[in-house]
Amino acid sequence: MILEKINKPNDIKKINPSEYATLAGEIRKFLIESVSKTGGHLASNLGVVELTMALHLAFDLPKDKIIWDVGHQSYTHKLLTGRKGGFNRLRKFGGMSGFPKREESDYDAFNTGHSSTSISAGVGYATARDLEGKTYKVVSVIGDGALTGGMAFEAFNNASGVKGNFIIVLNDNDMSIAPNVGGISDVLTEFRTSAKYYDFKERVVKDLKNLPHGPEIARRLKRTKDRLRHRLLPGQIIESFGVTYVGPIDGHDVNKMIRAFHYASKINGPVVVHVLTKKGKGYSHAEKFPSSFHGVAPFDIKTGEKLKGASVPSYAAVFSEKICAMAKENSKIVGITAAMPDGVGLKRFSKEFPDRYFDVGIAEGHAVTFAAGLAAGGMIPVFGVYSSFLQRGYDQIVHDVCMQNLKVIFAIDHAGLVGSDGETHQGIFDLSFLSSIPGLTIIAPKNGKELEDALEYAVYKAKGPVALRYPSGAASKKFEEFNALVKEGESEIIHMEKDIALLAAGRMMEIANIVREQMKDEGFNVSLINARFIKPFDKKLIRSLAGDHKLLVTMEENVLTGGFGEHVCRYVSESETGIKVLPIALPDAFIEHGSVKILFGESGIDPESVKKRIISEYNNLS
Amino acid sequence: MILEKINKPNDIKKINPSEYATLAGEIRKFLIESVSKTGGHLASNLGVVELTMALHLAFDLPKDKIIWDVGHQSYTHKLLTGRKGGFNRLRKFGGMSGFPKREESDYDAFNTGHSSTSISAGVGYATARDLEGKTYKVVSVIGDGALTGGMAFEAFNNASGVKGNFIIVLNDNDMSIAPNVGGISDVLTEFRTSAKYYDFKERVVKDLKNLPHGPEIARRLKRTKDRLRHRLLPGQIIESFGVTYVGPIDGHDVNKMIRAFHYASKINGPVVVHVLTKKGKGYSHAEKFPSSFHGVAPFDIKTGEKLKGASVPSYAAVFSEKICAMAKENSKIVGITAAMPDGVGLKRFSKEFPDRYFDVGIAEGHAVTFAAGLAAGGMIPVFGVYSSFLQRGYDQIVHDVCMQNLKVIFAIDHAGLVGSDGETHQGIFDLSFLSSIPGLTIIAPKNGKELEDALEYAVYKAKGPVALRYPSGAASKKFEEFNALVKEGESEIIHMEKDIALLAAGRMMEIANIVREQMKDEGFNVSLINARFIKPFDKKLIRSLAGDHKLLVTMEENVLTGGFGEHVCRYVSESETGIKVLPIALPDAFIEHGSVKILFGESGIDPESVKKRIISEYNNLS
Repeated sequence: MILEKINKPNDIKKINPSEYATLAGEIRKFLIESVSKTGGHLASNLGVVELTMALHLAFDLPKDKIIWDVGHQSYTHKLLTGRKGGFNRLRKFGGMSGFPKREESDYDAFNTGHSSTSISAGVGYATARDLEGKTYKVVSVIGDGALTGGMAFEAFNNASGVKGNFIIVLNDNDMSIAPNVGGISDVLTEFRTSAKYYDFKERVVKDLKNLPHGPEIARRLKRTKDRLRHRLLPGQIIESFGVTYVGPIDGHDVNKMIRAFHYASKINGPVVVHVLTKKGKGYSHAEKFPSSFHGVAPFDIKTGEKLKGASVPSYAAVFSEKICAMAKENSKIVGITAAMPDGVGLKRFSKEFPDRYFDVGIAEGHAVTFAAGLAAGGMIPVFGVYSSFLQRGYDQIVHDVCMQNLKVIFAIDHAGLVGSDGETHQGIFDLSFLSSIPGLTIIAPKNGKELEDALEYAVYKAKGPVALRYPSGAASKKFEEFNALVKEGESEIIHMEKDIALLAAGRMMEIANIVREQMKDEGFNVSLINARFIKPFDKKLIRSLAGDHKLLVTMEENVLTGGFGEHVCRYVSESETGIKVLPIALPDAFIEHGSVKILFGESGIDPESVKKRIISEYNNLS
Repeated sequence: MILEKINKPNDIKKINPSEYATLAGEIRKFLIESVSKTGGHLASNLGVVELTMALHLAFDLPKDKIIWDVGHQSYTHKLLTGRKGGFNRLRKFGGMSGFPKREESDYDAFNTGHSSTSISAGVGYATARDLEGKTYKVVSVIGDGALTGGMAFEAFNNASGVKGNFIIVLNDNDMSIAPNVGGISDVLTEFRTSAKYYDFKERVVKDLKNLPHGPEIARRLKRTKDRLRHRLLPGQIIESFGVTYVGPIDGHDVNKMIRAFHYASKINGPVVVHVLTKKGKGYSHAEKFPSSFHGVAPFDIKTGEKLKGASVPSYAAVFSEKICAMAKENSKIVGITAAMPDGVGLKRFSKEFPDRYFDVGIAEGHAVTFAAGLAAGGMIPVFGVYSSFLQRGYDQIVHDVCMQNLKVIFAIDHAGLVGSDGETHQGIFDLSFLSSIPGLTIIAPKNGKELEDALEYAVYKAKGPVALRYPSGAASKKFEEFNALVKEGESEIIHMEKDIALLAAGRMMEIANIVREQMKDEGFNVSLINARFIKPFDKKLIRSLAGDHKLLVTMEENVLTGGFGEHVCRYVSESETGIKVLPIALPDAFIEHGSVKILFGESGIDPESVKKRIISEYNNLS
């Protein structure tokens, strides 16, 4: 086993080049076995094994900085930087993160999680280096999918401002941006990047002018430029931004990549090294179904099947079924995703209504304004999106949707704590950033059935934009006997008693229910109300509760600051409702990875912690 | 006067083509005279007079939809759609908006104000049209500057999904994206767009394969493609996205543009019409200084001078001077702007520290992550930006800056009410969307001097990211005798009395001061505190106030929801401080254009309204 020799950072530099291929195979085996037990990102990591090896061999870490766009493909990087032992606790609470983290290792130069940030960060790093007269290398590794994100373009447009060397590795794993480049040989690559090429180019331009047949050649050039364009385009577009292009390179050939990186390192200014890799490489199931093996739960290596059978359907599955049923009846419904049809539950919609389905790429900002345009044109667009990724469309929700009161429906999945993906993916800010936008209705359904009802409400009753927010994972089946009609700004009474009222939003209804049952056993009187509408919230109910309740407990899976609890505190203060409010919410902090259950406990929103706070508060009052 | 015949929409269609040039001249004269009196956007409007005429002549409004990117160049459009009479109340409260507004006219197809949204909205409109089987035309008009915004790229990347006709007019007014295209003749344009061209292209490709000298020609083609690239690039890049390219066209020749639009209208799918215009055209002062005549106060037409002399320096001017002084001492300070060096006060910095100054284009998302990269590399980046435009960088502030606790300084100008630009430019959400981000310090200085102190604090004392937010216009010189050292989370006591405490942020300190003086005259005891820190806010002070105050009034120039007042209400509730909180803030609504003074009154945060609410609240308590 060569992998046994890899224990510290840079150990790979001691490996004999003839053993690289063997090592790559061992790393793949290690990753497959490890992820099959812990779950995690697989296909993308299998794709970049050789690329990561080549980067570690060609560069001098941690002096040089590698920035992994999106970051979920950094497993081999972690393995090569002394973190092999971390894989058995990958993405577990207190264990190794599934993403690069500066707090975890000096070899992680920049934290990532969301897409398309690496070029911006790299331009920043390289600029800082040049200003300080330092000489380290900066390498941003970005996939072709991430290039669809507008900020990657913004950064690319600014890359030519970098005076020193700055390498962008374009990890092209499905060739979607470069369908016809395969034919350009490595020879051309080396030719283009050699210093001689520049002189040569100058000379040709000059020569052509003086040639007797120059004009004739120019005419021919013109005529057939379109054919050429298709063959040389990626390089051409890239170079038009003042960025040198090297490639394409076989991304599974370590030595070729090392050579390319050495070339690239000598160029002043930004340079793209275009590398072709195969997602899922070396594991047949992942090669065949790269998107199923993008993020996986523990699975059987032989069959590729998940170890646990499918349990209760997720909110995404409920959404998927309902939106398809509604779209069948209503031809105005349009489905939009930003490159996550599976994640947000629009896969089936894409098959049943291909004309009304739009995957816009990793482009949340555009998705929102595109939806606004569709709504202005008379359609009912539904944008399925994860909470933390919708942050990218904040301005567009304010400026393009809500300011014109256009009826766009936001189906916000992964709201609240998401678990093992950690900080970058927790959907814990949406109630704060959405609540302050005038005219936006926000609903947090208590279970799968209520998500369906809320969708009906959004499509048929709402007069403006609506955001539905619900967590990842299994849709709750609790409280299915409670299904009061969804009416603008009305909460739903589950149990009306006196003394203490729990006003809970979304998944917190389950916690509230447990708390209530335990408190009942201990002799307290506790009402339970499904908040349902975060905005506009049910002011009438709050006033009516004040009559025979002393304590109103708001419960939400969102940070405290700017969240539902604060709105209620303010209303109670303003309206002199005279009831004490205890806002239960997540702390003012980023929350790391771990199981959702553990994170609830760590954040103080598990039943035990909540109960303790309520009882202590209530006893203080009495 | 031909302009006299233009009174209703489509009146321009009755004008004799021979009179277009005269009409254009009259429109320019009208705009210059009108804007010289009211102020407004001038240079961009003078640039698109003929373009707007051509659009109105070539298309059928309001059936066809024109979407004006950014929207400040829509004056001629307003003039041609029956709104000539609105110009004397342009941008005044209750008067005509300076931007397209669906509420104002059926001829305004989509509201704009922020940059780079028009292609997304156009793709949405065109998609809706095709799904509904309608036939109207959709035209997005976007400037070359707006193309630097990532969402324009995201949209462009999605434009090829439009099956029916969709026209993007690229209004290229400084040729920055297309330095070398001038040589391509109109002939080529017509050639490229004629149906024959497509057949021809097919034929050439096939022919070349079969030619005896095919390989030889191919080799020559390869060698000189770089030269060609520079000449044909804009069209080439555009067509590589599956979008047809027409142009460039003289943007001051109405008839040529009409022809181009007619051509373009016949193409299935998206088509870019590349139009070259001159910003400020026809008014020498604006042609010479287009950026000074971008947005203008009333001015003297002859001299081009502002009518009112420069008054008190703006916050931007204070920032400008201070940041330059600090940068002289500290070589780590870097200045960043998203295409607004004048607006945010970084012009002087750009001249004094050209190596440390970065204008990234209209690319706020990139700007924020670029700053994060700079900070990771050891620099102290200061991003000067308007509040409402920072909304575009929300995710990046969360994900790239605060999650890594990188010291980036946000100098947020135009926070609070901005006045005549209206809804899209009001900076009234920043306290809400920023407060919920863990680890971000937020300061609202009370005057110019405190902005300087806060900058010192941010650069030399703060341990993480800091946002400073201050309004447009003159920097307050009030309270200059109060200059307590800026310490994390500490507010500043101005007058400590009892009964009623005013805790005001930023510009609201001036209102609070007036209110206090009037209330003192009426016999009330009123303390006045400069909140200074919105986050973390001064909890200790709030607790101490509770001792001999009954009413705590928070005052902020931000929407109520998610703002400072709510945080205080929540804290008082949580901590059982036992003081009544009255949160004074802006209502949960978008706020239209008008003078800042009028808008303060309309929003209920003028001294009179505030005083009334406080007294009523206080009397209720007693």
